[in-house]
Amino acid sequence: MKKAGTKKESNEYDFLIIGAGVTGMAAAMYAARLGLKTLCLGKSYGSELPIGGVITTTNIVENYPGFIKLTGTELSDKIRDHALSYPLVTIKEEEAQKVEKKGNLFHVKTNKSEYIAKTILFATGTKWKKLDVPGSKEYENKGVAYCALCDAPLFKNKIVGLVGGSDSAAKDALVLSDHAKKTYIIYRGDQIHPEPINMTRIEQKVKKGKIEIINNTNITEIKGAQFLKSVIFDKPYKGKKEFPLEGLFIAIGHIPLSDLAKSLGVKINEKGEIILDHRTSETNVSGVYAAGDVGDTPFKQAITGVAEGCIAAYSAYEYMTKSEIMPT
Amino acid sequence: MKKAGTKKESNEYDFLIIGAGVTGMAAAMYAARLGLKTLCLGKSYGSELPIGGVITTTNIVENYPGFIKLTGTELSDKIRDHALSYPLVTIKEEEAQKVEKKGNLFHVKTNKSEYIAKTILFATGTKWKKLDVPGSKEYENKGVAYCALCDAPLFKNKIVGLVGGSDSAAKDALVLSDHAKKTYIIYRGDQIHPEPINMTRIEQKVKKGKIEIINNTNITEIKGAQFLKSVIFDKPYKGKKEFPLEGLFIAIGHIPLSDLAKSLGVKINEKGEIILDHRTSETNVSGVYAAGDVGDTPFKQAITGVAEGCIAAYSAYEYMTKSEIMPT
Repeated sequence: MKKAGTKKESNEYDFLIIGAGVTGMAAAMYAARLGLKTLCLGKSYGSELPIGGVITTTNIVENYPGFIKLTGTELSDKIRDHALSYPLVTIKEEEAQKVEKKGNLFHVKTNKSEYIAKTILFATGTKWKKLDVPGSKEYENKGVAYCALCDAPLFKNKIVGLVGGSDSAAKDALVLSDHAKKTYIIYRGDQIHPEPINMTRIEQKVKKGKIEIINNTNITEIKGAQFLKSVIFDKPYKGKKEFPLEGLFIAIGHIPLSDLAKSLGVKINEKGEIILDHRTSETNVSGVYAAGDVGDTPFKQAITGVAEGCIAAYSAYEYMTKSEIMPT
Repeated sequence: MKKAGTKKESNEYDFLIIGAGVTGMAAAMYAARLGLKTLCLGKSYGSELPIGGVITTTNIVENYPGFIKLTGTELSDKIRDHALSYPLVTIKEEEAQKVEKKGNLFHVKTNKSEYIAKTILFATGTKWKKLDVPGSKEYENKGVAYCALCDAPLFKNKIVGLVGGSDSAAKDALVLSDHAKKTYIIYRGDQIHPEPINMTRIEQKVKKGKIEIINNTNITEIKGAQFLKSVIFDKPYKGKKEFPLEGLFIAIGHIPLSDLAKSLGVKINEKGEIILDHRTSETNVSGVYAAGDVGDTPFKQAITGVAEGCIAAYSAYEYMTKSEIMPT
């Protein structure tokens, strides 16, 4: 990481970003161009997510304009390198645990250190929603998994299930079907609803017998011994209410990581998403911005989070230059 | 350009984009992923702009996250190639001249043909604001120019002026100073206001004597014979009210190209920008979207236009699937 003299060594920043996914790192790049001394804090989500954000769990990204096809990790690496090409940017693998506003400044405590910042961006993203049925916690990492890209290779030639019907769920099923012998998509609704291009890919796998879709069905229990062995459906499928599986992936959505923002008085909607002004990425608290999956955007994509992050950097810069809190 | 059977040959489209800059072409890519048969119409702005939009007149783009540095044309080419990697996308160099809504469908007339579309995206961008003083029209292309990147090489080793104080103006001055002997930035306000990173670059050129900044000064007339020879200031600079120059570049802002949208009943603000819902890129007219520089965004960048374009494609898809106007 580049250093730019003693100022860099101090724990005071113009712009402190919580979250080192593509949104946070793009915001850091933009902020540095605007002359802001910027810190981007990334938490590794236990075994779930490395620094670089949730996109690193995506195998193929084809919808970030400018790159016809690359992996999520490649995109994340490109944006991190872009941010780090500016000496004003520091990225640290630390978990923000407490944020307080004192006067016009924000005090941020992490698992390792303390920082003072003039402005804050929440680019904290989301975490996976857990399946809340008996056995789901007991068999986590013993057959129950959340990151298809991380764990699919562990299920080579096995029979696996995937719960969910979204575009993300469909992409996970496609990844799984490259490894597993057979992947059952288990969905509570009438019909899964991925992007049309991914629906076509699913249909091709269905034709080949690699994927099978079980609609209008819920899992009510997960059973096993040392390892997951079966799931119980709320109604029989092909005559079986207890359905044998060797693995079960959960893709039923995400929970916005907005608790820290909430503790600062930032307004949150009923889904737990941060309410923001989509022209400026401002929240209701002066000097506090939000961008990416944690925000109340109906359409959450890498490209939209990245744009919101850049907008937040610009708004933070405007806020500092217009108020008396001049950037360093 | 790829073709996908007879459907492609018809003049009916799900999503018709007016404007083939990075915003319009990114929207086309996204729409195709959503299964929409998409047409993107790009107008070449006389001698001013080629297809690819205004970014093609930018020498260095360093703020599109993922690319540390590339030219505007390179970025535009990458996004065009991305769009054209989907057979559902067609890009045509035609100028939309009339748009009418008949029932639920839009009828678009260009200089070459007629099209019918279920939804419309205005990604028309802006045109250069002209300097409105005696002589400015007379000496256009005879010393008065608007596109620094296009025309700077014509002024090699000459003494030129550049009117404006924005970040775009500063970037133009930097391009000019690579060719001209001396570049005078002529600005009506107290101080030019580029991004800090570009201000630093300007200051370096000022130190080297390549750039000189004349603040608080307006041009009231442009004089010459066959070719521009001097400009008249509203107050003397270094004792001269008539200031000799061999070229004059104008960078005083842009006018949104919103007339066609207005003719459809789309609401426009006092700057002429299309008023849009920044969560959805929707305008006040059902089935009509707007994105990029033509919209009422305070912060207009390639990355924000591109994201708005993708959001518009998604909103158009949702509109068609939720209403009875199903995509083709």
